[in-house]
Amino acid sequence: MKVYLDNGATTKTAPEVVEAMMLYFTEQYGNASSLHTFGREAKDALDTARATIAKKLNATPEEIIFTSGGTESDNLAIKGIAYAHKDKGNHIITSKIEHPAVLSTCATLEKEGFKVTYLDVDKEGLIKPEQVKKAITDKTILVTIMHANNEIGTIEPIKEIGEICKIHKIFFHTDAVQSFTKVPLDVKMISVDLISLSGHKIHGPKGVGVLYVKKGTKLKKMSDGGGHEFRLRAGTENISGIVGFAKATEFVSEKDVRDVQKLRDKLMDGLLKIPHTQLNGSRKQRLSNNVNISFNYIEGESLLMSLDDRGIAVSTGSACSSHSLQPSHVLMALGLKPEIAHGSIRFTLSKYTTEDEIDFTIKTVKEVVEKLRQFSPLGR
Amino acid sequence: MKVYLDNGATTKTAPEVVEAMMLYFTEQYGNASSLHTFGREAKDALDTARATIAKKLNATPEEIIFTSGGTESDNLAIKGIAYAHKDKGNHIITSKIEHPAVLSTCATLEKEGFKVTYLDVDKEGLIKPEQVKKAITDKTILVTIMHANNEIGTIEPIKEIGEICKIHKIFFHTDAVQSFTKVPLDVKMISVDLISLSGHKIHGPKGVGVLYVKKGTKLKKMSDGGGHEFRLRAGTENISGIVGFAKATEFVSEKDVRDVQKLRDKLMDGLLKIPHTQLNGSRKQRLSNNVNISFNYIEGESLLMSLDDRGIAVSTGSACSSHSLQPSHVLMALGLKPEIAHGSIRFTLSKYTTEDEIDFTIKTVKEVVEKLRQFSPLGR
Repeated sequence: MKVYLDNGATTKTAPEVVEAMMLYFTEQYGNASSLHTFGREAKDALDTARATIAKKLNATPEEIIFTSGGTESDNLAIKGIAYAHKDKGNHIITSKIEHPAVLSTCATLEKEGFKVTYLDVDKEGLIKPEQVKKAITDKTILVTIMHANNEIGTIEPIKEIGEICKIHKIFFHTDAVQSFTKVPLDVKMISVDLISLSGHKIHGPKGVGVLYVKKGTKLKKMSDGGGHEFRLRAGTENISGIVGFAKATEFVSEKDVRDVQKLRDKLMDGLLKIPHTQLNGSRKQRLSNNVNISFNYIEGESLLMSLDDRGIAVSTGSACSSHSLQPSHVLMALGLKPEIAHGSIRFTLSKYTTEDEIDFTIKTVKEVVEKLRQFSPLGR
Repeated sequence: MKVYLDNGATTKTAPEVVEAMMLYFTEQYGNASSLHTFGREAKDALDTARATIAKKLNATPEEIIFTSGGTESDNLAIKGIAYAHKDKGNHIITSKIEHPAVLSTCATLEKEGFKVTYLDVDKEGLIKPEQVKKAITDKTILVTIMHANNEIGTIEPIKEIGEICKIHKIFFHTDAVQSFTKVPLDVKMISVDLISLSGHKIHGPKGVGVLYVKKGTKLKKMSDGGGHEFRLRAGTENISGIVGFAKATEFVSEKDVRDVQKLRDKLMDGLLKIPHTQLNGSRKQRLSNNVNISFNYIEGESLLMSLDDRGIAVSTGSACSSHSLQPSHVLMALGLKPEIAHGSIRFTLSKYTTEDEIDFTIKTVKEVVEKLRQFSPLGR
């Protein structure tokens, strides 16, 4: 049995998505900027995809900027606002548990003279809207807080944070890479200026992302060249990737989300029956597909490798920092001791996950944990 | 008959390439940063693709940085060098006929205090190495000259320019997006520090590019996040795109290049028999697949549209600026009058182009040109 439970790192591209992309590789392969029929076909596909994604967010097509992925979207959002509005202030508010794409971008801006406040989170990983309010100064130009955390699945109160930003006339960016298609996101209901999305986290292809940019928001572009993407992002549009991304947004239904959540709960409850375990993140404000558990007295990497030997793919922390020896910055921010953080594993489900796979996983993890604890120098 | 002669704008993704990509969409869909089997499969595919492309340039795998395309590669090369070496100088040398991705990037740097020299070209679009030598000052940190021009196909003397840069210890970047797989490029034979490449110009997919960065070259990265691509370009690697790009580098053989060149010569000679026409660019130092011809007394866009009605896809200028009403900056740099530049058409062939298509194109262009001239207010 091959069980893929690392959908937080990346997902299988749905066959339906791949099929939709095919036409644009070998038949309608034009450049969307070309004036002839091949070009117009590509432009039509681009426009349709843009409209599909806009509709999903209740936005307008002109607010959808295609990028190469979530990292580029985060960079463009944060640097784009910082550089375009530095005359108004140099202060940015974020949290300690953001994705590396946000944290590294903020760190780069700090080197360039910007000031960044990294908000603490509570032991479930939640940011309180009042913390944002308190951190605001007359130099604050941007708040960037993720919609849902990639490691522990905690869903942040972005509606309330957005309202605070609106009152104070501060731009609000949210990285919604993990939550997109799992937690509804309606830009008419939530006051947000910039949203980062990624194709490959939602059964779309790798190499394509979106930045939602609210109409009228001034950004400094990062990539110079042709006038693509409303002059915000130069480069020949990746039509097949964009078509695939749009198709993927229709792949997961509300029912699918509820079904995944049921399997998630079964996995969570099953694993927490193993002695000396604890759930990381919030039980209530949690992504439908995320389970993150600390197994005391165990090295997470040993557990990961033993599970991999048995056909189960999981992760310690996020894939982006999986080769790091540092304990996860997210788990440390929750207040976990380093040795507990090191024994933590993330299981992330998808629509493809079956109940058999979950049963097999619970049984296998239980066996492996017992075995590892027997031989572990960390064992009691 | 459907004849695609706009391969300078983009190419059909070869079915062989699409086939190679498939495995990484729906089977080996892991994130290359993940530690489990899915992740290692992805990492292996990434490493193999990197080695394939390195070999094609006679480079080492560590010198190959994957990007989202030619535009990002140009931006990363030019801004990367400018920002990392601004303590040594603020002067950049380029030419008037570079791609918009280079020219716009240089324009942005000028706004930030860099000085840029835009070299003239002769009437064939050629830059003389001595011009580069003369333009060098003690503040010059970078020379960026394209390998072959995207509109007129002129191949620049980058070997000689590279040698001058080496002697003066100045970084040399070349945009080889149009020439790659058509003109040999060996980094052991040519002294070059940075090379931009693009997948979709060589029958690979859109949305993937390469920047060759010579070992030891210090660059400021543009995209912050995870430590991907030797810490030079953050973001989950687009494995299927990268695998497709690598596969595409093997698609065009030296014989294919010679065969395309024969068809190109037939097209060129056939079209130049139409009265009041002239070839733009060099006849000798020319890309194997490029024909660019001015049809006097005709609007290029009318000709393009009439040919499109008859199933033939061509372009006026580059796709990136096809919606611009300005005459091509490349043709203007050759010294063409605006009305002649406006009557110019680029035909770009590929390995898929057949002799029948060329015969049909010559015949059709002849008919359409005659008809348009009869009714044209520009007609004599």
